[in-house]
Amino acid sequence: MKRKNETVRISIIGFGYVGSGVAEVVTRKRAEIARKHGLDLKIVGVADLRGVVVDEDGLSAKTLRKLSAGERGVGSWKEAAAEGLTSLDLIKEVEHEVVVEATPTNVETGEPGLTHIISALEAGRHVVTSNKGPLALEYRRLTELAARRGRELRFEAAVGGAMPLISLVRQNLAGNGVISLRGILNGTCNYILTRMAEEGLPYEHVLKEAKELGIAETDPSKDVEGTDTAVKLVILANSVFERNATYKDVAVAGITEITTDALRLASEAGFVIKLIGEVNKEGFLRVAPRLVPKADPLNVGGTLNVAKVKTDLAGEITVIGKGAGPIEAASAVLSDIIWTAKHF
Amino acid sequence: MKRKNETVRISIIGFGYVGSGVAEVVTRKRAEIARKHGLDLKIVGVADLRGVVVDEDGLSAKTLRKLSAGERGVGSWKEAAAEGLTSLDLIKEVEHEVVVEATPTNVETGEPGLTHIISALEAGRHVVTSNKGPLALEYRRLTELAARRGRELRFEAAVGGAMPLISLVRQNLAGNGVISLRGILNGTCNYILTRMAEEGLPYEHVLKEAKELGIAETDPSKDVEGTDTAVKLVILANSVFERNATYKDVAVAGITEITTDALRLASEAGFVIKLIGEVNKEGFLRVAPRLVPKADPLNVGGTLNVAKVKTDLAGEITVIGKGAGPIEAASAVLSDIIWTAKHF
Repeated sequence: MKRKNETVRISIIGFGYVGSGVAEVVTRKRAEIARKHGLDLKIVGVADLRGVVVDEDGLSAKTLRKLSAGERGVGSWKEAAAEGLTSLDLIKEVEHEVVVEATPTNVETGEPGLTHIISALEAGRHVVTSNKGPLALEYRRLTELAARRGRELRFEAAVGGAMPLISLVRQNLAGNGVISLRGILNGTCNYILTRMAEEGLPYEHVLKEAKELGIAETDPSKDVEGTDTAVKLVILANSVFERNATYKDVAVAGITEITTDALRLASEAGFVIKLIGEVNKEGFLRVAPRLVPKADPLNVGGTLNVAKVKTDLAGEITVIGKGAGPIEAASAVLSDIIWTAKHF
Repeated sequence: MKRKNETVRISIIGFGYVGSGVAEVVTRKRAEIARKHGLDLKIVGVADLRGVVVDEDGLSAKTLRKLSAGERGVGSWKEAAAEGLTSLDLIKEVEHEVVVEATPTNVETGEPGLTHIISALEAGRHVVTSNKGPLALEYRRLTELAARRGRELRFEAAVGGAMPLISLVRQNLAGNGVISLRGILNGTCNYILTRMAEEGLPYEHVLKEAKELGIAETDPSKDVEGTDTAVKLVILANSVFERNATYKDVAVAGITEITTDALRLASEAGFVIKLIGEVNKEGFLRVAPRLVPKADPLNVGGTLNVAKVKTDLAGEITVIGKGAGPIEAASAVLSDIIWTAKHF
């Protein structure tokens, strides 16, 4: 006996790196998700600066592929675009259940993500987002709005990419009180420090290499100065510890002053240096390079992310995973979509 | 505005190590769980070989403490016991929602856990268990029974103790296809190998020390010969990979032949030796001592457990936690109880 699948209509706002990754995994996994979870996922609209494309019966895999970043560029969008429709029209006027907000993070204003998320919740849609800005700036406002509207706001992809952290704490460790969280939440910094330590190479050299490999952005300041880690900490403070923190509550130091000498001295004493974000239930929020014992689970290399959750019952639970990559981020978004669809 | 808490009535069958741990954490966390999850957890009955104690209004913290293993022994049970009532009477006749099955594991017959779980599901109760035997022997029968009755059967505590693994794969990584699982699933073996490697001490010496510390049992054969790890692998194969495996499908080797020489040679080449359980979607099931690179996330020390989940979207996700301990196991049971109560 085969039960009928429940249709879940999705829009993707912001069709770059993460957004097109979500389209790809939804397409690739559609049959499997129908079989395993009884859900028929349909992408009914995508929007970014190039335009808005809508098909209420679901955009085909072929169309989505054409629209993906890097393929054919603006041409396909012009061809397919719904005349005169804006992102907000798509969010508000096209019938669907889940808005995936994946526009670039802006930590000063939160826009355009903030307006997208508010509009989506007000229109009665669930929201799954990878966008750190709106969550770091207006966490309480957004979660209160979601609660008032009886809608879900999920954001696993915003912290730690593919590494499940927020859902781990909230669901898997539901019986536990969380005492603190410590971790490496930025893969670029981890790559730089790992290479410096292993090869004895200076910061500038490794940074250049990271840029060439696409691991660091052209302007890597948000990563190496600790801003990105700090923004993620704010989201963790608010979501895990029910605080009302903002960026200015975080003491932030980056990795730009770390020398190969410091790494060597640390190594001789049995330590590595990692850029560690820390938050605890008393509201302590710090990003700083810290000594980590080599045998500690927090000592992970390359671009990996890691988080150690200290709890009152389960003791310390550590989770390690890839913090970046379009498919990895999309994996977190997809799990959030499935959770939302199954629980509402 | 305060919404009324939903009452969740619980019985605990098997009141040793894990069962009394569950009573302790439910008591300790009751107010917090009411506040955070809107659930009022009540233990309405406990049973083990010493007797059966029932209070339909919920056993008091004081009574539960008295009944706990090690406190006053049989006397308190005699005093409190409901005349003539058996465990099965408690399971079937006393009104409640969740049966916690925490009797000792028997991997030959699965009893008495198997009968308890079947009776509970047939009586329309949800079941949360830490008992590996019934799951390793009759996984499909039990899950099919649960599905037919529309009841939940959860068993996070059976594999990895406090380390969330089954729920991680099923919930947090829901969009992912799982390719393989590899890990250290037995803390006793990990302790022995870690100590042997770090101190250059022979197997027999460290085993004796582990017994003195209570890390190894008087008869440690199930741990050191790999049986315990193999049973956990069978549960993972069946629950994560939807197979129908039994213990005899696992190729098993233990750690009793590992020498300090082997550990030293491995170390010189940059490796540690760990007892690794492996299962993949093709049905490969093996427990054996394996070389693990020192820098690999699987290299965790002491009594820690670890599992590396290889997925098709999120890449490799590693989770590390305490595999044993009454409060740690109870933490997993409690999270399963909360999940069940919130989803049915």
